[in-house]
Order: sequence, then C-alpha cells, then structure tokens
Amino acid sequence: MDPVTDPIAEAHRQWSARWPEHADRMAAVTSVMRAQQLLLGRIEAALKPFGLTFAAYEALRLLAFTRTGTLPMGKMGVRLMVHPASVTNVVGRLEQRGLARRAPSPDDRRVVLATITPAGRELAERATAALHEDGFGLADLTAEQAAAVTGALRAVRVSAGDLPD
Amino acid sequence: MDPVTDPIAEAHRQWSARWPEHADRMAAVTSVMRAQQLLLGRIEAALKPFGLTFAAYEALRLLAFTRTGTLPMGKMGVRLMVHPASVTNVVGRLEQRGLARRAPSPDDRRVVLATITPAGRELAERATAALHEDGFGLADLTAEQAAAVTGALRAVRVSAGDLPD
Repeated sequence: MDPVTDPIAEAHRQWSARWPEHADRMAAVTSVMRAQQLLLGRIEAALKPFGLTFAAYEALRLLAFTRTGTLPMGKMGVRLMVHPASVTNVVGRLEQRGLARRAPSPDDRRVVLATITPAGRELAERATAALHEDGFGLADLTAEQAAAVTGALRAVRVSAGDLPD
Repeated sequence: MDPVTDPIAEAHRQWSARWPEHADRMAAVTSVMRAQQLLLGRIEAALKPFGLTFAAYEALRLLAFTRTGTLPMGKMGVRLMVHPASVTNVVGRLEQRGLARRAPSPDDRRVVLATITPAGRELAERATAALHEDGFGLADLTAEQAAAVTGALRAVRVSAGDLPD
C-alpha cells in the first residue's frame, strides 16, 4: 500500500513506529469508520429519490418481511439494533407519509404495533430494487469478498458484546 | 449463527430466500453500519473524559505526528478523509480550547496552517493512552483478526473509489 494514496496505511506506519502492538487495531477501527462513511453516502444517494434514510428503509423492509405486515415497536428496535426512541422517530415519519401506521395492541395496550401500508410495501420494493441495482454500494465486490467483510466484522461485534461468542 | 441472536444473520436468511444474489452484499453493508455504531460508542466513551470527539482526536493526533506540529488545513482534510468544512470546524474547536492555533502561511496567505500547542500534544498523548488501554474497543481481537478487518474493508474502499485498485 502506498502511504501517499492510503491515509490508513500511512497512519498504520506512524503507529507501528511508536506503538506497534496497537497499530493493527487502530487501522481496523479507522477502516470501519471510513467504510461506513463511504457506504452510507452511496446508500443514502440511492435511497434519496424515495425520500428514505437508510434507517427508514430498514424499518420499512423489516415490516415488509413479516407475514402480517405488523410488528411490536419494541421488537423492531431489537431487530434493527437501535434505541426504542429511534424506532418511534422513524416509524412516526413513515406514518406521516402514509407508509406505515401505529396502533396499540388489542392484547396489551402498553404495546404499540407498527403496520406497513400497501403504499409502504410498494415503496419498500422499489427502494430495494434501487439498492440491488447499485449493489449496496459494493457492486465491484464478489460474493466471497462481501462474505469476508461480514465474517471479519462478526469478530468485532462479538468483541463489542453485540453477539455471544 | 443463530438467527434469533444475530439480526444480521436473520436478515441474510430473509434476503437469501428472495434475492440470493444480493444477500452477501446486504449483510456486508449492514455489518459495516453495525460495527461502526458499536465502535464509535466505545471510542467516544473512552475519549469523553478528554472532551474530544473521535474526529477531534484524529485531527490532534495527526498534528502531533508531524515534526513541526504544523500542517496546512487542506492537507489535514486529505489525510483525515473529511470535507474541508469539517476540518475548519474541528480545528476551530481545538483552538477555542487552546489545543491548536491557526494562522495564514507566511509563504502563501491563502493557505491556513494549523499548529498543535504543547497542551494539545499533552492531551493527544493522554487520549491515545486511553484508547490503547481500551484496545480501540477491540481488545478481544487478535492482531490477525484486526488485520483481517482492515484487509476485507480495503476491498470496500477500493470498490467505493477511495483507493486505486
């Protein structure tokens, strides 16, 4: 790697000269930050024509996958790995656009259910097609390279307590 | 992977049933987003006692690495892989805290130079020690696992046009 063209390789070189035992972790963290920034930019550009952020798309997609189109908001938070307040925010904005609606559960009024509307399902399909068209910003990666990303980051998620070992 | 305990594995399963050719890329992108969220939380917690965001830490660290403690702001943007306006913002806040200062270049007054102060150098060293203590949020990873993350994400960066192939 040419240190002039790759700032992460250059940072790794700087770290290796001072704290060699920490250089690989520093480069890994910086790589995650940089990859996220690049991919989020690509994905939000692909979703912009649909007026969706990536978080809104994920919520819509999750509801579209269910048989009934309905999920408790709490369960959505777990599945989307986001804070309950973020789910409330995202689903609230989908509701304003007629893409989802919220109602208390008939079984337990403390539980709020989110349900995707037909317009929401239709938008989810079109947005998914656009992301596929764009290869999720990773069109040049082979399936094997993509699986290597998921595998390497699984160790990060285990280390951060996101998953059992 | 247990689909109940790993939402990304569950999403991969859903995708594979409908769009198998896109499942690996979807899981890779979602893994990057999730890993970034986890690591940023860990790192910003480690930096909080120093009043630094990760972006501010990176700017300070970059200046501390230079022999003279000075860099043109434009070069900082390239090295930190951020927009010039972000560099202005971050260095402005470092300046308010007496950690850096800005001045026009004596050679070309259109160029603004940022210089780290002794207080800035001292804080950079202490913050770096805290990040090392925390293993950059990746203490459980071996050096090999960390290098695998960097390697797998290099393909992502090449695909996104961040690096030459």
